This record gives sequence, structure tokens and C-alpha cells, in this order.
Amino acid sequence: MDKWKQKERPLCLERRFEFDCYEKTRDFLDRLGDYSEKKDRYPDISFGKTYVNITVRPLDDDSRELTDADQKFACEIDLLSE
Amino acid sequence: MDKWKQKERPLCLERRFEFDCYEKTRDFLDRLGDYSEKKDRYPDISFGKTYVNITVRPLDDDSRELTDADQKFACEIDLLSE
Repeated sequence: MDKWKQKERPLCLERRFEFDCYEKTRDFLDRLGDYSEKKDRYPDISFGKTYVNITVRPLDDDSRELTDADQKFACEIDLLSE
Repeated sequence: MDKWKQKERPLCLERRFEFDCYEKTRDFLDRLGDYSEKKDRYPDISFGKTYVNITVRPLDDDSRELTDADQKFACEIDLLSE
């Protein structure tokens, strides 16, 4: 989890992924889309030709802490990038 | 073009698209990906479950104005959302 940065206000985990071409960026976005649908959980994503930034917020909007489920969700996104 | 807002510093066109479900958001992102590959032009995009924000910068990084080609690129993105 060391590549995810925890931010406060609003509480979230953020990570930037970089790729060497658009094809790899798009493949990652496709896997991420499939995974989001499977989990019915949609993080905020920003991307360009060779990067993807992901923001994972607590599943419970009112939560003041990130749970194990949130950390696991982020870890599984890491696996999609490999 | 009225739904695109022109920003300065850095000069760009921005538009937010909203959808009523993730499936429609993802369909639009897929069409946008195909169109980007066809044009070899990759705007900055941010999205969540039901929105997509797009930033179109001048094709020429050093340009101080948006050209007809930039406006046309934005117009063609509008058509992809319909």
C-alpha cells in the first residue's frame, strides 16, 4: 500500500499509475471498469495518454476513517495494473 | 459549442457531461477512447460513476489560442455523447 497516499479533508487514498503508451493505459482503464462494475464501486479517476490517477474514498460517505475494505479495494486496483 | 467553457492559464476548453448510470458513462468513455486513438489526440479526462469532465488543450502546446481544429475536436466529442 506504500504507493497510495492517504489524504485528509476529504479523507481518501490516492495513487498515480504511469504507463508507457496509451494502449496500456486503456487496458488498465478497461480492467478498472470491469472491476468497478463487479464491486459496484466507482472511484474518481482522471487520466491522460499515459497516466491514471485514482481517488478511493471511504465506502461510507460519513466515515472518518478508511476501513480494511477500503484498503483491500485499493490493493486489488494495484493488482489490475500489473 | 456553448457548453464548453474556455479557460485561460493554461488555455483550454472544458466540458462536463452527465449520465444517468455507469453503463452510459462507460459507453461514452469507450467511444472517446476509440476517437482519441483515431485522431491520436488524448485530452485530459476525469470521471466518476455518472460524470465525465474533459479538458481540451491547444494541439500546439505553445499556442496562445485555440484553433478551428481544437473547436472541431470538441464538437466531435459532443457528437459522441449523443
